[in-house]
Amino acid sequence: MYTPPLGKLIQELERLPGIGPKSAQRLAFYILHMPEEEAKALAQAILEARSKIRPCKECFNYTEKEVCEICSDPRRDRSQICVVAEVSDLMAIERMGEYRGLYHVLGGVLSPADGIGPDELTISKLLERVERGGVEEVIIATPPTVEGDVTASYIADLIKPMGVKVTRIALGLPAGGDLDYADPTTILRALEGRREM
Amino acid sequence: MYTPPLGKLIQELERLPGIGPKSAQRLAFYILHMPEEEAKALAQAILEARSKIRPCKECFNYTEKEVCEICSDPRRDRSQICVVAEVSDLMAIERMGEYRGLYHVLGGVLSPADGIGPDELTISKLLERVERGGVEEVIIATPPTVEGDVTASYIADLIKPMGVKVTRIALGLPAGGDLDYADPTTILRALEGRREM
Repeated sequence: MYTPPLGKLIQELERLPGIGPKSAQRLAFYILHMPEEEAKALAQAILEARSKIRPCKECFNYTEKEVCEICSDPRRDRSQICVVAEVSDLMAIERMGEYRGLYHVLGGVLSPADGIGPDELTISKLLERVERGGVEEVIIATPPTVEGDVTASYIADLIKPMGVKVTRIALGLPAGGDLDYADPTTILRALEGRREM
Repeated sequence: MYTPPLGKLIQELERLPGIGPKSAQRLAFYILHMPEEEAKALAQAILEARSKIRPCKECFNYTEKEVCEICSDPRRDRSQICVVAEVSDLMAIERMGEYRGLYHVLGGVLSPADGIGPDELTISKLLERVERGGVEEVIIATPPTVEGDVTASYIADLIKPMGVKVTRIALGLPAGGDLDYADPTTILRALEGRREM
């Protein structure tokens, strides 16, 4: 139905997450109508991102340099490391604008079913960073899922013996959340995490 | 917040329709994790589509050749031309698989407010095709909007004097549609278009 280069473009766009056949066609038609230089800029941005971006050798955030902008920022508090599963989680915390410590991106969570053990994550590198000294608190911000919780416990068990405080982000009702719509686990966690007023 | 090549990629992806900042970030992260050859294939598909695809010189469908696959297919019925606003409308009709005539893509609809007059569309080329002879019916399938209706009337007024039958696709309730949820205009059109059973 499509002329081959159009069919190919639609097929490549369909590989992207959340892009079904209909959206892929819409995007492809849009790309055909974009100014020439914008279409070239998009293709170029894909190639450049792939060739220039690499993991920070300290925290595994994305960077163009050896060490990322957060790790090399002298204003960041080096006594705190916030451990996240993915770079997107780091970005979510940065967007909030309140956290001033460093990060450590694990590259996922422990998931034996998917063949992801400790060696598939950047856990040993995190231990090295803590061993190097100067870290007072490791805040574990893996997601509140079974795998995220297991990963958090696994890391906590390795770091606590090193004499460093390990904390887990609070689990409870989201701001503006409705008790009536919350699942039982969330309510249980919210009750367990209750604080005196 | 993002390392420059990542920020650039997100910015380029955000130009695409229906892609907000959040989806652009998600797509960019996905592109960073894709196998190298898939990312290159995507960039290449964008560039190839732009360089190889052009409008069919007969009907303005997308094609790699002078004349598109539909226009050059000897099995298509050359006595019918279905006039559509965009290539995506042509694709929607082709997907149905019942129409065997030819098409004519206008490249939009008349919209004086947006500076789109007859000369911005491929109307004169449509008249040439009809003048060349062999066309028995021009089916106008512009969308059922004010602009689509005005465009349909404008084209009908030019073609009817040439002695060729001009029809407009039916407007009414969609299959499976609920009268209770239909807007008054749709109900009016459905009533006006009623047929004896």
